[in-house]
Amino acid sequence: MRRFVVASPGTAGEVRILPLPMAGEIRPGDSLIEQFLAAAKKQGIRFQAGDILVVKHKVVSKAEGAVVVLHEIVPSNASRSWARRFGLDARVTELALRESRRVVRRKRGVMITETRHGFICANTGIDVSNVDGGKHAVLLPQDPDRSASRLRADLKKRLRLDVAVIVSDSFGRPWREGLTEVAIGVAGMRPLVDYRGKRDSHGYKLHASVDAIADELACAAGLVCGKLAGTPACIIRGYSYRAGQGTARELIRPAANDLFR
Amino acid sequence: MRRFVVASPGTAGEVRILPLPMAGEIRPGDSLIEQFLAAAKKQGIRFQAGDILVVKHKVVSKAEGAVVVLHEIVPSNASRSWARRFGLDARVTELALRESRRVVRRKRGVMITETRHGFICANTGIDVSNVDGGKHAVLLPQDPDRSASRLRADLKKRLRLDVAVIVSDSFGRPWREGLTEVAIGVAGMRPLVDYRGKRDSHGYKLHASVDAIADELACAAGLVCGKLAGTPACIIRGYSYRAGQGTARELIRPAANDLFR
Repeated sequence: MRRFVVASPGTAGEVRILPLPMAGEIRPGDSLIEQFLAAAKKQGIRFQAGDILVVKHKVVSKAEGAVVVLHEIVPSNASRSWARRFGLDARVTELALRESRRVVRRKRGVMITETRHGFICANTGIDVSNVDGGKHAVLLPQDPDRSASRLRADLKKRLRLDVAVIVSDSFGRPWREGLTEVAIGVAGMRPLVDYRGKRDSHGYKLHASVDAIADELACAAGLVCGKLAGTPACIIRGYSYRAGQGTARELIRPAANDLFR
Repeated sequence: MRRFVVASPGTAGEVRILPLPMAGEIRPGDSLIEQFLAAAKKQGIRFQAGDILVVKHKVVSKAEGAVVVLHEIVPSNASRSWARRFGLDARVTELALRESRRVVRRKRGVMITETRHGFICANTGIDVSNVDGGKHAVLLPQDPDRSASRLRADLKKRLRLDVAVIVSDSFGRPWREGLTEVAIGVAGMRPLVDYRGKRDSHGYKLHASVDAIADELACAAGLVCGKLAGTPACIIRGYSYRAGQGTARELIRPAANDLFR
Protein backbone atom coordinates (compact mmCIF):
# COMPACT_ATOMS: atom_id res chain seq x y z
CA MET A 1 0.00 0.00 0.00
CA ARG A 2 2.96 2.33 -0.41
CA ARG A 3 2.57 3.14 -4.05
CA PHE A 4 2.05 6.74 -5.13
CA VAL A 5 -0.85 7.70 -7.35
CA VAL A 6 -0.10 10.44 -9.86
CA ALA A 7 -2.77 12.08 -11.96
CA SER A 8 -1.84 13.78 -15.20
CA PRO A 9 -1.75 17.52 -14.49
CA GLY A 10 -1.83 20.43 -16.95
CA THR A 11 1.81 21.49 -16.65
CA ALA A 12 4.58 19.67 -14.77
CA GLY A 13 3.78 19.57 -11.08
CA GLU A 14 0.65 21.67 -11.41
CA VAL A 15 -2.22 21.01 -9.01
CA ARG A 16 -5.74 21.84 -10.19
CA ILE A 17 -8.85 22.44 -8.12
CA LEU A 18 -11.95 21.72 -10.19
CA PRO A 19 -15.24 22.84 -8.64
CA LEU A 20 -18.37 20.69 -8.89
CA PRO A 21 -21.25 23.18 -8.62
CA MET A 22 -24.65 21.70 -7.79
CA ALA A 23 -28.00 23.39 -8.10
CA GLY A 24 -30.42 21.23 -6.13
CA GLU A 25 -30.88 20.57 -2.44
CA ILE A 26 -29.58 17.27 -1.03
CA ARG A 27 -32.22 15.15 0.70
CA PRO A 28 -31.93 12.11 2.97
CA GLY A 29 -31.25 9.00 0.89
CA ASP A 30 -29.93 10.93 -2.15
CA SER A 31 -27.00 9.34 -3.95
CA LEU A 32 -24.25 11.93 -3.69
CA ILE A 33 -22.10 10.14 -6.23
CA GLU A 34 -24.81 10.37 -8.90
CA GLN A 35 -25.04 14.09 -8.21
CA PHE A 36 -21.26 14.56 -8.33
CA LEU A 37 -21.06 12.62 -11.60
CA ALA A 38 -23.83 14.76 -13.10
CA ALA A 39 -22.09 17.95 -11.89
CA ALA A 40 -18.76 16.80 -13.34
CA LYS A 41 -20.39 15.97 -16.66
CA LYS A 42 -22.00 19.41 -16.77
CA GLN A 43 -18.55 20.96 -16.21
CA GLY A 44 -17.01 18.78 -18.91
CA ILE A 45 -14.80 17.05 -16.32
CA ARG A 46 -14.09 13.32 -16.28
CA PHE A 47 -12.83 11.75 -13.07
CA GLN A 48 -9.30 10.33 -13.36
CA ALA A 49 -7.42 7.76 -11.31
CA GLY A 50 -5.48 9.62 -8.61
CA ASP A 51 -8.01 12.43 -8.30
CA ILE A 52 -9.05 13.51 -4.83
CA LEU A 53 -12.74 14.22 -4.30
CA VAL A 54 -13.28 16.72 -1.48
CA VAL A 55 -16.83 16.99 -0.16
CA LYS A 56 -18.18 19.46 2.39
CA HIS A 57 -19.65 17.48 5.27
CA LYS A 58 -22.96 19.32 5.12
CA VAL A 59 -24.18 17.51 1.99
CA VAL A 60 -22.91 14.21 3.40
CA SER A 61 -24.85 14.78 6.63
CA LYS A 62 -27.98 15.73 4.70
CA ALA A 63 -27.78 12.67 2.42
CA GLU A 64 -27.25 10.45 5.48
CA GLY A 65 -30.15 12.06 7.34
CA ALA A 66 -27.96 13.49 10.12
CA VAL A 67 -30.39 16.38 10.43
CA VAL A 68 -32.53 17.34 13.44
CA VAL A 69 -35.69 19.46 13.42
CA LEU A 70 -34.92 22.20 15.93
CA HIS A 71 -38.43 22.65 17.31
CA GLU A 72 -38.32 19.08 18.64
CA ILE A 73 -35.38 19.89 20.93
CA VAL A 74 -36.30 20.81 24.51
CA PRO A 75 -33.37 22.67 26.04
CA SER A 76 -32.38 22.20 29.67
CA ASN A 77 -32.47 25.13 32.06
CA ALA A 78 -28.67 25.39 31.87
CA SER A 79 -28.76 25.59 28.06
CA ARG A 80 -31.54 28.20 28.23
CA SER A 81 -29.63 30.33 30.67
CA TRP A 82 -26.35 30.18 28.68
CA ALA A 83 -28.14 30.92 25.40
CA ARG A 84 -30.11 33.82 26.89
CA ARG A 85 -26.95 35.42 28.24
CA PHE A 86 -25.38 35.58 24.80
CA GLY A 87 -28.37 35.86 22.49
CA LEU A 88 -28.04 32.32 21.15
CA ASP A 89 -30.57 29.63 20.19
CA ALA A 90 -30.92 27.46 23.33
CA ARG A 91 -31.92 24.45 21.20
CA VAL A 92 -28.63 24.62 19.31
CA THR A 93 -26.72 24.89 22.60
CA GLU A 94 -28.65 21.91 23.95
CA LEU A 95 -27.98 19.83 20.84
CA ALA A 96 -24.28 20.78 20.79
CA LEU A 97 -23.98 19.59 24.40
CA ARG A 98 -25.91 16.36 23.75
CA GLU A 99 -23.78 15.54 20.69
CA SER A 100 -20.50 16.28 22.49
CA ARG A 101 -18.24 14.11 24.57
CA ARG A 102 -17.18 17.03 26.75
CA VAL A 103 -16.85 20.80 26.87
CA VAL A 104 -13.26 21.97 26.35
CA ARG A 105 -13.86 25.72 26.95
CA ARG A 106 -16.96 27.83 27.37
CA LYS A 107 -16.69 31.58 27.59
CA ARG A 108 -18.42 34.71 26.28
CA GLY A 109 -20.91 32.72 24.20
CA VAL A 110 -18.28 30.56 22.53
CA MET A 111 -18.47 26.86 23.33
CA ILE A 112 -15.60 24.62 22.25
CA THR A 113 -16.43 20.94 22.60
CA GLU A 114 -14.98 17.55 21.79
CA THR A 115 -17.20 15.61 19.40
CA ARG A 116 -17.86 11.89 19.75
CA HIS A 117 -15.32 11.38 16.96
CA GLY A 118 -12.66 13.24 18.98
CA PHE A 119 -12.63 16.48 16.94
CA ILE A 120 -12.40 19.71 18.92
CA CYS A 121 -14.45 22.54 17.46
CA ALA A 122 -17.17 25.09 18.19
CA ASN A 123 -20.70 23.83 18.98
CA THR A 124 -19.84 20.17 18.23
CA GLY A 125 -19.77 21.07 14.54
CA ILE A 126 -23.50 21.75 14.37
CA ASP A 127 -24.74 23.98 11.53
CA VAL A 128 -28.16 25.55 11.35
CA SER A 129 -29.97 25.44 8.03
CA ASN A 130 -33.36 26.32 6.65
CA VAL A 131 -34.64 23.14 5.04
CA ASP A 132 -38.26 22.87 3.84
CA GLY A 133 -39.09 26.20 5.43
CA GLY A 134 -38.18 25.04 8.98
CA LYS A 135 -35.06 25.48 11.00
CA HIS A 136 -32.94 22.36 11.04
CA ALA A 137 -29.64 21.52 12.67
CA VAL A 138 -27.17 19.64 10.51
CA LEU A 139 -25.00 17.34 12.64
CA LEU A 140 -21.59 15.97 11.72
CA PRO A 141 -21.85 12.61 9.90
CA GLN A 142 -21.95 9.74 12.39
CA ASP A 143 -18.72 8.29 11.00
CA PRO A 144 -17.15 10.62 8.40
CA ASP A 145 -14.40 8.08 7.56
CA ARG A 146 -17.10 5.58 6.67
CA SER A 147 -18.91 8.26 4.63
CA ALA A 148 -15.68 8.90 2.71
CA SER A 149 -15.12 5.17 2.21
CA ARG A 150 -18.62 4.72 0.84
CA LEU A 151 -18.20 7.58 -1.62
CA ARG A 152 -14.88 6.07 -2.70
CA ALA A 153 -16.44 2.62 -3.12
CA ASP A 154 -19.38 4.07 -5.06
CA LEU A 155 -17.01 5.88 -7.42
CA LYS A 156 -14.94 2.74 -7.91
CA LYS A 157 -18.05 0.74 -8.69
CA ARG A 158 -19.38 3.29 -11.16
CA LEU A 159 -16.13 4.29 -12.90
CA ARG A 160 -13.59 1.57 -11.98
CA LEU A 161 -11.23 4.32 -10.85
CA ASP A 162 -9.21 4.77 -7.67
CA VAL A 163 -10.15 8.16 -6.25
CA ALA A 164 -9.29 9.33 -2.72
CA VAL A 165 -12.08 11.05 -0.80
CA ILE A 166 -11.97 13.71 1.92
CA VAL A 167 -15.01 14.90 3.87
CA SER A 168 -14.33 18.41 5.19
CA ASP A 169 -15.71 20.92 7.66
CA SER A 170 -14.74 24.50 8.57
CA PHE A 171 -13.23 24.77 12.05
CA GLY A 172 -11.97 27.75 14.01
CA ARG A 173 -8.55 27.69 15.65
CA PRO A 174 -6.96 29.10 18.76
CA TRP A 175 -4.81 32.22 18.23
CA ARG A 176 -5.86 32.84 14.64
CA GLU A 177 -8.92 34.56 13.23
CA GLY A 178 -11.16 32.96 10.65
CA LEU A 179 -12.19 29.42 9.84
CA THR A 180 -10.19 27.03 7.71
CA GLU A 181 -11.23 23.69 6.29
CA VAL A 182 -10.13 20.48 7.95
CA ALA A 183 -10.50 16.84 6.94
CA ILE A 184 -12.99 15.03 9.20
CA GLY A 185 -13.24 11.93 6.99
CA VAL A 186 -10.59 10.34 4.79
CA ALA A 187 -10.56 7.32 2.45
CA GLY A 188 -7.96 6.00 0.02
CA MET A 189 -5.03 8.13 1.13
CA ARG A 190 -2.74 8.72 4.09
CA PRO A 191 -3.72 12.05 5.69
CA LEU A 192 -0.25 12.75 7.12
CA VAL A 193 3.06 12.90 5.26
CA ASP A 194 6.02 12.19 7.49
CA TYR A 195 9.34 13.85 6.62
CA ARG A 196 11.03 12.93 9.90
CA GLY A 197 14.39 11.33 9.38
CA LYS A 198 14.56 12.55 5.79
CA ARG A 199 17.23 15.04 4.85
CA ASP A 200 16.87 18.41 3.20
CA SER A 201 18.99 19.46 0.22
CA HIS A 202 21.91 20.18 2.58
CA GLY A 203 21.79 16.79 4.23
CA TYR A 204 20.37 18.29 7.41
CA LYS A 205 17.88 15.98 9.08
CA LEU A 206 14.40 17.48 9.24
CA HIS A 207 12.76 17.54 12.65
CA ALA A 208 9.10 17.68 13.55
CA SER A 209 8.09 17.68 9.91
CA VAL A 210 4.84 15.82 9.67
CA ASP A 211 2.49 17.60 7.27
CA ALA A 212 -1.27 17.38 7.66
CA ILE A 213 -1.73 17.00 3.93
CA ALA A 214 -5.42 16.05 4.16
CA ASP A 215 -6.10 19.34 5.95
CA GLU A 216 -4.12 21.25 3.32
CA LEU A 217 -6.16 19.52 0.60
CA ALA A 218 -9.36 20.43 2.47
CA CYS A 219 -8.17 24.08 2.60
CA ALA A 220 -7.35 24.06 -1.11
CA ALA A 221 -10.88 22.75 -1.75
CA GLY A 222 -12.22 25.53 0.48
CA LEU A 223 -11.06 28.04 -2.13
CA VAL A 224 -13.74 26.84 -4.56
CA CYS A 225 -16.28 25.30 -2.14
CA GLY A 226 -17.46 28.60 -0.72
CA LYS A 227 -20.15 29.13 1.83
CA LEU A 228 -22.53 30.79 -0.61
CA ALA A 229 -21.31 29.35 -3.89
CA GLY A 230 -23.52 26.23 -4.14
CA THR A 231 -20.38 24.19 -4.72
CA PRO A 232 -20.30 21.46 -2.06
CA ALA A 233 -17.52 19.45 -3.70
CA CYS A 234 -14.50 19.65 -5.94
CA ILE A 235 -11.86 17.48 -7.54
CA ILE A 236 -8.18 18.08 -6.75
CA ARG A 237 -6.03 16.81 -9.60
CA GLY A 238 -2.27 16.49 -9.88
CA TYR A 239 -1.40 15.99 -6.22
CA SER A 240 0.63 12.80 -5.70
CA TYR A 241 -0.78 11.40 -2.51
CA ARG A 242 0.29 8.30 -0.73
CA ALA A 243 -2.38 5.67 -1.26
CA GLY A 244 -3.59 3.65 1.70
CA GLN A 245 -6.76 3.14 3.69
CA GLY A 246 -6.30 6.26 5.79
CA THR A 247 -8.53 7.67 8.51
CA ALA A 248 -9.14 11.16 9.83
CA ARG A 249 -8.41 9.74 13.30
CA GLU A 250 -4.71 10.02 12.43
CA LEU A 251 -5.22 13.80 12.38
CA ILE A 252 -6.45 13.90 15.98
CA ARG A 253 -3.65 14.51 18.48
CA PRO A 254 -3.92 12.10 21.42
CA ALA A 255 -4.92 13.96 24.60
CA ALA A 256 -1.70 12.86 26.32
CA ASN A 257 0.41 14.74 23.72
CA ASP A 258 -1.74 17.85 23.65
CA LEU A 259 -0.72 21.00 25.56
CA PHE A 260 -4.04 22.79 25.05
CA ARG A 261 -6.86 20.60 26.37
CA MET B 1 -10.01 49.11 -2.97
CA ARG B 2 -13.04 46.81 -2.90
CA ARG B 3 -12.86 45.53 -6.44
CA PHE B 4 -12.41 41.82 -7.09
CA VAL B 5 -9.52 40.63 -9.21
CA VAL B 6 -10.28 37.65 -11.41
CA ALA B 7 -7.57 35.80 -13.30
CA SER B 8 -8.48 33.76 -16.34
CA PRO B 9 -8.60 30.14 -15.22
CA GLY B 10 -8.47 26.96 -17.32
CA THR B 11 -12.11 25.94 -16.93
CA ALA B 12 -14.90 27.91 -15.27
CA GLY B 13 -14.10 28.45 -11.63
CA GLU B 14 -10.97 26.32 -11.70
CA VAL B 15 -8.10 27.26 -9.39
CA ARG B 16 -4.58 26.29 -10.45
CA ILE B 17 -1.48 25.93 -8.31
CA LEU B 18 1.63 26.42 -10.44
CA PRO B 19 4.92 25.47 -8.75
CA LEU B 20 8.05 27.58 -9.23
CA PRO B 21 10.93 25.15 -8.66
CA MET B 22 14.33 26.70 -7.99
CA ALA B 23 17.66 24.97 -8.07
CA GLY B 24 20.08 27.33 -6.35
CA GLU B 25 20.49 28.40 -2.75
CA ILE B 26 19.21 31.86 -1.73
CA ARG B 27 21.85 34.16 -0.24
CA PRO B 28 21.53 37.45 1.65
CA GLY B 29 20.89 40.29 -0.77
CA ASP B 30 19.57 38.05 -3.58
CA SER B 31 16.64 39.41 -5.55
CA LEU B 32 13.89 36.87 -5.02
CA ILE B 33 11.75 38.36 -7.75
CA GLU B 34 14.49 37.84 -10.37
CA GLN B 35 14.71 34.22 -9.25
CA PHE B 36 10.93 33.72 -9.33
CA LEU B 37 10.74 35.29 -12.81
CA ALA B 38 13.53 33.00 -14.03
CA ALA B 39 11.79 29.97 -12.49
CA ALA B 40 8.46 30.93 -14.08
CA LYS B 41 10.12 31.39 -17.47
CA LYS B 42 11.71 27.97 -17.18
CA GLN B 43 8.26 26.49 -16.46
CA GLY B 44 6.74 28.36 -19.40
CA ILE B 45 4.52 30.35 -17.03
CA ARG B 46 3.81 34.07 -17.41
CA PHE B 47 2.50 35.99 -14.41
CA GLN B 48 -1.02 37.37 -14.89
CA ALA B 49 -2.91 40.15 -13.14
CA GLY B 50 -4.85 38.61 -10.27
CA ASP B 51 -2.31 35.86 -9.64
CA ILE B 52 -1.30 35.18 -6.05
CA LEU B 53 2.39 34.53 -5.43
CA VAL B 54 2.91 32.36 -2.34
CA VAL B 55 6.47 32.24 -0.98
CA LYS B 56 7.80 30.07 1.86
CA HIS B 57 9.25 32.38 4.50
CA LYS B 58 12.57 30.53 4.57
CA VAL B 59 13.81 31.96 1.26
CA VAL B 60 12.54 35.41 2.27
CA SER B 61 14.45 35.21 5.56
CA LYS B 62 17.58 34.03 3.76
CA ALA B 63 17.40 36.81 1.14
CA GLU B 64 16.86 39.37 3.93
CA GLY B 65 19.75 38.00 5.98
CA ALA B 66 17.53 36.88 8.89
CA VAL B 67 19.97 34.02 9.54
CA VAL B 68 22.07 33.42 12.64
CA VAL B 69 25.24 31.32 12.89
CA LEU B 70 24.45 28.90 15.70
CA HIS B 71 27.97 28.60 17.13
CA GLU B 72 27.86 32.30 18.05
CA ILE B 73 24.92 31.75 20.41
CA VAL B 74 25.83 31.23 24.06
CA PRO B 75 22.88 29.56 25.78
CA SER B 76 21.86 30.44 29.33
CA ASN B 77 21.94 27.78 32.04
CA ALA B 78 18.15 27.52 31.87
CA SER B 79 18.26 26.90 28.11
CA ARG B 80 21.03 24.33 28.59
CA SER B 81 19.10 22.47 31.24
CA TRP B 82 15.83 22.40 29.24
CA ALA B 83 17.64 21.29 26.06
CA ARG B 84 19.61 18.58 27.89
CA ARG B 85 16.43 17.14 29.40
CA PHE B 86 14.86 16.60 25.99
CA GLY B 87 17.87 16.06 23.73
CA LEU B 88 17.56 19.44 22.00
CA ASP B 89 20.10 21.99 20.76
CA ALA B 90 20.44 24.50 23.61
CA ARG B 91 21.45 27.25 21.18
CA VAL B 92 18.16 26.87 19.31
CA THR B 93 16.23 26.97 22.59
CA GLU B 94 18.15 30.08 23.60
CA LEU B 95 17.51 31.80 20.28
CA ALA B 96 13.81 30.85 20.31
CA LEU B 97 13.49 32.44 23.76
CA ARG B 98 15.41 35.57 22.74
CA GLU B 99 13.32 36.03 19.62
CA SER B 100 10.03 35.50 21.47
CA ARG B 101 7.76 37.91 23.28
CA ARG B 102 6.69 35.25 25.78
CA VAL B 103 6.34 31.52 26.33
CA VAL B 104 2.75 30.29 25.91
CA ARG B 105 3.34 26.63 26.94
CA ARG B 106 6.44 24.59 27.61
CA LYS B 107 6.16 20.89 28.25
CA ARG B 108 7.91 17.65 27.32
CA GLY B 109 10.42 19.37 25.03
CA VAL B 110 7.79 21.33 23.13
CA MET B 111 7.99 25.09 23.51
CA ILE B 112 5.12 27.21 22.15
CA THR B 113 5.95 30.90 22.09
CA GLU B 114 4.50 34.17 20.90
CA THR B 115 6.73 35.84 18.31
CA ARG B 116 7.39 39.57 18.25
CA HIS B 117 4.86 39.76 15.41
CA GLY B 118 2.19 38.13 17.60
CA PHE B 119 2.16 34.68 15.95
CA ILE B 120 1.93 31.71 18.29
CA CYS B 121 3.99 28.73 17.16
CA ALA B 122 6.71 26.28 18.20
CA ASN B 123 10.22 27.63 18.85
CA THR B 124 9.37 31.17 17.68
CA GLY B 125 9.33 29.84 14.11
CA ILE B 126 13.06 29.16 14.04
CA ASP B 127 14.31 26.62 11.49
CA VAL B 128 17.73 25.04 11.52
CA SER B 129 19.53 24.76 8.21
CA ASN B 130 22.91 23.72 6.95
CA VAL B 131 24.20 26.71 5.01
CA ASP B 132 27.83 26.81 3.78
CA GLY B 133 28.58 23.66 5.75
CA GLY B 134 27.73 25.24 9.11
CA LYS B 135 24.60 25.04 11.20
CA HIS B 136 22.51 28.18 10.86
CA ALA B 137 19.20 29.20 12.35
CA VAL B 138 16.76 30.82 9.98
CA LEU B 139 14.56 33.33 11.82
CA LEU B 140 11.16 34.61 10.74
CA PRO B 141 11.43 37.73 8.55
CA GLN B 142 11.51 40.85 10.70
CA ASP B 143 8.29 42.15 9.13
CA PRO B 144 6.72 39.55 6.82
CA ASP B 145 4.00 41.98 5.67
CA ARG B 146 6.72 44.35 4.53
CA SER B 147 8.53 41.46 2.80
CA ALA B 148 5.30 40.60 0.95
CA SER B 149 4.74 44.26 0.04
CA ARG B 150 8.25 44.55 -1.37
CA LEU B 151 7.84 41.43 -3.49
CA ARG B 152 4.53 42.79 -4.75
CA ALA B 153 6.10 46.19 -5.55
CA ASP B 154 9.06 44.53 -7.30
CA LEU B 155 6.68 42.46 -9.45
CA LYS B 156 4.61 45.52 -10.30
CA LYS B 157 7.74 47.43 -11.28
CA ARG B 158 9.07 44.60 -13.45
CA LEU B 159 5.83 43.41 -15.07
CA ARG B 160 3.29 46.22 -14.47
CA LEU B 161 0.92 43.63 -13.05
CA ASP B 162 -1.12 43.54 -9.86
CA VAL B 163 -0.19 40.33 -8.05
CA ALA B 164 -1.07 39.58 -4.42
CA VAL B 165 1.72 38.07 -2.30
CA ILE B 166 1.58 35.73 0.69
CA VAL B 167 4.62 34.78 2.79
CA SER B 168 3.92 31.44 4.50
CA ASP B 169 5.30 29.22 7.23
CA SER B 170 4.31 25.77 8.54
CA PHE B 171 2.78 25.90 12.03
CA GLY B 172 1.53 23.16 14.31
CA ARG B 173 -1.90 23.41 15.91
CA PRO B 174 -3.51 22.36 19.16
CA TRP B 175 -5.66 19.20 18.97
CA ARG B 176 -4.61 18.16 15.48
CA GLU B 177 -1.52 16.31 14.29
CA GLY B 178 0.74 17.60 11.55
CA LEU B 179 1.76 21.01 10.36
CA THR B 180 -0.23 23.15 7.95
CA GLU B 181 0.82 26.31 6.17
CA VAL B 182 -0.30 29.69 7.45
CA ALA B 183 0.09 33.19 6.05
CA ILE B 184 2.56 35.26 8.09
CA GLY B 185 2.84 38.07 5.53
CA VAL B 186 0.20 39.42 3.15
CA ALA B 187 0.18 42.15 0.49
CA GLY B 188 -2.40 43.18 -2.08
CA MET B 189 -5.34 41.21 -0.74
CA ARG B 190 -7.65 40.96 2.26
CA PRO B 191 -6.68 37.83 4.23
CA LEU B 192 -10.16 37.27 5.70
CA VAL B 193 -13.46 36.91 3.85
CA ASP B 194 -16.43 37.86 5.96
CA TYR B 195 -19.74 36.13 5.28
CA ARG B 196 -21.46 37.40 8.40
CA GLY B 197 -24.81 38.95 7.67
CA LYS B 198 -24.95 37.30 4.24
CA ARG B 199 -27.63 34.72 3.56
CA ASP B 200 -27.26 31.18 2.31
CA SER B 201 -29.38 29.78 -0.54
CA HIS B 202 -32.31 29.34 1.88
CA GLY B 203 -32.19 32.90 3.12
CA TYR B 204 -30.79 31.79 6.45
CA LYS B 205 -28.31 34.26 7.87
CA LEU B 206 -24.83 32.79 8.23
CA HIS B 207 -23.22 33.12 11.61
CA ALA B 208 -19.56 33.14 12.58
CA SER B 209 -18.51 32.69 8.99
CA VAL B 210 -15.26 34.52 8.55
CA ASP B 211 -12.91 32.47 6.39
CA ALA B 212 -9.14 32.75 6.77
CA ILE B 213 -8.67 32.70 3.03
CA ALA B 214 -4.97 33.67 3.16
CA ASP B 215 -4.30 30.60 5.32
CA GLU B 216 -6.27 28.40 2.89
CA LEU B 217 -4.22 29.82 0.02
CA ALA B 218 -1.02 29.11 1.99
CA CYS B 219 -2.22 25.51 2.53
CA ALA B 220 -3.01 25.11 -1.16
CA ALA B 221 0.52 26.34 -1.92
CA GLY B 222 1.85 23.83 0.61
CA LEU B 223 0.69 21.04 -1.71
CA VAL B 224 3.39 21.95 -4.24
CA CYS B 225 5.91 23.76 -2.00
CA GLY B 226 7.07 20.65 -0.20
CA LYS B 227 9.74 20.41 2.43
CA LEU B 228 12.12 18.46 0.20
CA ALA B 229 10.94 19.54 -3.22
CA GLY B 230 13.15 22.59 -3.82
CA THR B 231 10.03 24.57 -4.66
CA PRO B 232 9.93 27.58 -2.35
CA ALA B 233 7.17 29.41 -4.21
CA CYS B 234 4.16 28.96 -6.44
CA ILE B 235 1.52 30.92 -8.27
CA ILE B 236 -2.16 30.42 -7.44
CA ARG B 237 -4.29 31.37 -10.42
CA GLY B 238 -8.05 31.65 -10.76
CA TYR B 239 -8.95 32.56 -7.19
CA SER B 240 -10.98 35.79 -7.04
CA TYR B 241 -9.59 37.54 -4.02
CA ARG B 242 -10.66 40.82 -2.61
CA ALA B 243 -7.99 43.38 -3.42
CA GLY B 244 -6.78 45.73 -0.70
CA GLN B 245 -3.63 46.45 1.23
CA GLY B 246 -4.10 43.58 3.69
CA THR B 247 -1.88 42.49 6.55
CA ALA B 248 -1.27 39.17 8.25
CA ARG B 249 -2.03 40.96 11.54
CA GLU B 250 -5.73 40.60 10.68
CA LEU B 251 -5.21 36.84 11.08
CA ILE B 252 -4.01 37.13 14.67
CA ARG B 253 -6.81 36.81 17.21
CA PRO B 254 -6.57 39.54 19.84
CA ALA B 255 -5.57 38.05 23.22
CA ALA B 256 -8.80 39.34 24.81
CA ASN B 257 -10.91 37.19 22.43
CA ASP B 258 -8.75 34.09 22.72
CA LEU B 259 -9.78 31.19 24.95
CA PHE B 260 -6.45 29.34 24.68
CA ARG B 261 -3.61 31.68 25.75
